[in-house]
Amino acid sequence: MSERLVVVGGGAAGMSAASAARRTDPDREVVVLEASGHAAYGLCGLPYYVSGVVDEPESLLAYPPDHFRSRRGIDLRLNTTATRLEPRRRVVYCRVDGRESPLHYDRLVVAAGGTPARPPALGLVDPGVHTVRRLEDAVRLRGLLDSGRVRRALVVGAGSIGLEMAEALTERGVHVVVAELARQVLPILDAPLAEAVAGEVRRHGVDLRLGAAVSGLRRDPRGLRADVDGEPTAVDIVVLASGLRAESTLAAAAGASTIRSGGLVVDDRMRTSLPDVYAAGDCAAVHHLVLGRPALVPLGPAANKTGRVAGTVAAGGDARFPGLVGTAVVKVFDLAVARTGLTLAEALAEGLPAVATDAVGRSRAKYYPGAAPVSVRLVHERDGRLLGAQMVGADEGVAKRIDAAAVALQAGLDVDAVAALDLSYAPPYAPVYEPLLLAAQKAARASARVATTGEEAATSGLRGR
Amino acid sequence: MSERLVVVGGGAAGMSAASAARRTDPDREVVVLEASGHAAYGLCGLPYYVSGVVDEPESLLAYPPDHFRSRRGIDLRLNTTATRLEPRRRVVYCRVDGRESPLHYDRLVVAAGGTPARPPALGLVDPGVHTVRRLEDAVRLRGLLDSGRVRRALVVGAGSIGLEMAEALTERGVHVVVAELARQVLPILDAPLAEAVAGEVRRHGVDLRLGAAVSGLRRDPRGLRADVDGEPTAVDIVVLASGLRAESTLAAAAGASTIRSGGLVVDDRMRTSLPDVYAAGDCAAVHHLVLGRPALVPLGPAANKTGRVAGTVAAGGDARFPGLVGTAVVKVFDLAVARTGLTLAEALAEGLPAVATDAVGRSRAKYYPGAAPVSVRLVHERDGRLLGAQMVGADEGVAKRIDAAAVALQAGLDVDAVAALDLSYAPPYAPVYEPLLLAAQKAARASARVATTGEEAATSGLRGR
Repeated sequence: MSERLVVVGGGAAGMSAASAARRTDPDREVVVLEASGHAAYGLCGLPYYVSGVVDEPESLLAYPPDHFRSRRGIDLRLNTTATRLEPRRRVVYCRVDGRESPLHYDRLVVAAGGTPARPPALGLVDPGVHTVRRLEDAVRLRGLLDSGRVRRALVVGAGSIGLEMAEALTERGVHVVVAELARQVLPILDAPLAEAVAGEVRRHGVDLRLGAAVSGLRRDPRGLRADVDGEPTAVDIVVLASGLRAESTLAAAAGASTIRSGGLVVDDRMRTSLPDVYAAGDCAAVHHLVLGRPALVPLGPAANKTGRVAGTVAAGGDARFPGLVGTAVVKVFDLAVARTGLTLAEALAEGLPAVATDAVGRSRAKYYPGAAPVSVRLVHERDGRLLGAQMVGADEGVAKRIDAAAVALQAGLDVDAVAALDLSYAPPYAPVYEPLLLAAQKAARASARVATTGEEAATSGLRGR
Repeated sequence: MSERLVVVGGGAAGMSAASAARRTDPDREVVVLEASGHAAYGLCGLPYYVSGVVDEPESLLAYPPDHFRSRRGIDLRLNTTATRLEPRRRVVYCRVDGRESPLHYDRLVVAAGGTPARPPALGLVDPGVHTVRRLEDAVRLRGLLDSGRVRRALVVGAGSIGLEMAEALTERGVHVVVAELARQVLPILDAPLAEAVAGEVRRHGVDLRLGAAVSGLRRDPRGLRADVDGEPTAVDIVVLASGLRAESTLAAAAGASTIRSGGLVVDDRMRTSLPDVYAAGDCAAVHHLVLGRPALVPLGPAANKTGRVAGTVAAGGDARFPGLVGTAVVKVFDLAVARTGLTLAEALAEGLPAVATDAVGRSRAKYYPGAAPVSVRLVHERDGRLLGAQMVGADEGVAKRIDAAAVALQAGLDVDAVAALDLSYAPPYAPVYEPLLLAAQKAARASARVATTGEEAATSGLRGR
């Protein structure tokens, strides 16, 4: 009898795990339990379906369910929730249509993803209150927008998803209020760059309220009412985008170790602390190469990679996930916003002797049409060790520029080595000195000053703190 | 009395050297001798001035001459040719208006750039025969185009400049014949990717003739006649773009060592073999980190960096140029074409045990508008050592993608490490698996097969040879 691998979750991580397992051992039975009605959908594409940039929800599917079933031999069970785990007996309980039944596994991969945070004050269950995590969520929201009855929306949270949703709703002609508890948008950025992004959001007519709590949510006869910073605000819909909780309950309740923020602890083979139980994707705490410890980094590339490793290893193969540096990019109206590694705020909170060096370069040769400023912040130690980079610019070509910094970080290059990098140049695409190199040269000069004089305040650009 | 630093050449390398020298030692006298009437112009921008994408030739100047003179204190002498060097006496002879006079130097930086190759058969001096190296060349050529009398052009050479000029002339409504002696366009690419570029060039109406020699050039009463592959071809103008010769004569005639292809030998401080003589830019042979030896890489970023190092060191400061990996990008009509490191052809010619792995990815999420295929070739050794990368795609976002590979190469990452890189993802800018990662995964699998089985033919994609 063939061994059975069960994967909990049919998102990017789960389907990567299932596919990798089948490739590793074509004889192994692979079952995927997916709570929603869809598997392998492009979660990050949901705002673009809501905005109408993407026409059909089916476009967001990496593959249709039949592809996994007939072409890859994966037993994909939709609308099936894993409710309970008994690791000693190697049984997971599945609920379908309200009925629960046990399913034996030899190996289990938990790839249950994350759940949008839902503060108690916003617990109202109402057709106007939305999260954007599942394909169904986006279909429901777009249906409402298509009905033409949505004129005012409140987005709770100004992280990446909150701002993407603010943009999507604005593009649909909705007046958007964004309420964010923090004093800045986008925690992936330090304050000075986040301010530029906030300006961009406001320029597009969004009513952005920073440092603003949403303390209540109710429906009265005239519609939905939210208390934004104490002020009752009438809206047609509310989108909750105030963060993600790692969906680790299933394994944690069965005794799996988690980090404090809830992600499942895994080793570089994606093994949890439970025997024969692996984890991947947003529910796992993965090794952060700059922090040197596990962290929650709920992003698509890590979900795919950790899923592949978990599936390969669970099916008897060999693979390793070396860790990540937290590279991310997000489109906010006309700005590309990107970061890798740590922000200055994160580095200082970690107790690292970090400083920041800021520079502004250009996206193309200054004489070439479309050249736009690119703001770069390098976060580094005083001796030149690179800790992170941030970039913001109004040119599509900015987005992939962060990757050069991400590779440098992953390879352990210091700011001197970054300043000497041989990066591509042609007037339509780049200036002769890349913005990253300008910042690195400046950081290298600051570090050299520290090295030669021991000077304390060598930081050029420790601003915005 | 202050020491005098003389810089020969007012291009990117020369002006970088002069500026760096002034920054390093503000008391030093810095003289720049520039043979043409312009300094610090964007050489790589000339095709875009010819095409009309850039309106004014002045836009191509990094700074006007007065900026260097009054703001930076540099004695910039235009229309001044350095004719002869006497390193023992530390004298360089300058010719202005046909008169020659000696100029004493304490340190000399040779940054004379390169000269377009001019095969003897194409030696005709004629108002219709052009090179595109100096700002004056482009102004003259654009003047001719503006006169409306140019209907047919022959471009000799299908390297980067040849193809950029073919595009510029096509955009001006000129019928363009490109004749290239080699069997492919763009020596920076291997044949399979070069074929895609050739297709793009032809799709835009260019009459591209590969393996075609231009054996003669003459003017007869009816106009210019070129013999293209033996066939007399009537054209209104000829643009010579068949390569660049390092302009090292001045120093070489005085005894400076050169490599076989003519570039001046320098160390990592840009010191030539002559005492107190430095070299930078296209006339210097710089350390190629993959080849492990000096090579000619006549590109803007290297000119700026080596100029800065030469100027800093010549002025008594400390700086080092660690070398480069030959990263380059060029726009060819709607294609972005990029490479770093070695092509397979170059690696094999070098005697390296190289193979190529090809993959095709996408520039954005498949459902996001504008997503275009990105062809990637990784060149690597059978054990996984990365030697180079090439990318071609019809999306601007492709251009800067080569930088991630360039950094990986410079940092010495192997294909396994490249496959695990944490690169940025967001549907508008990137697919969840970057094209580079797809290629690296494939290359890593091929390398793993070699490692475990010793199998000879592990190469996936050794095509096009």
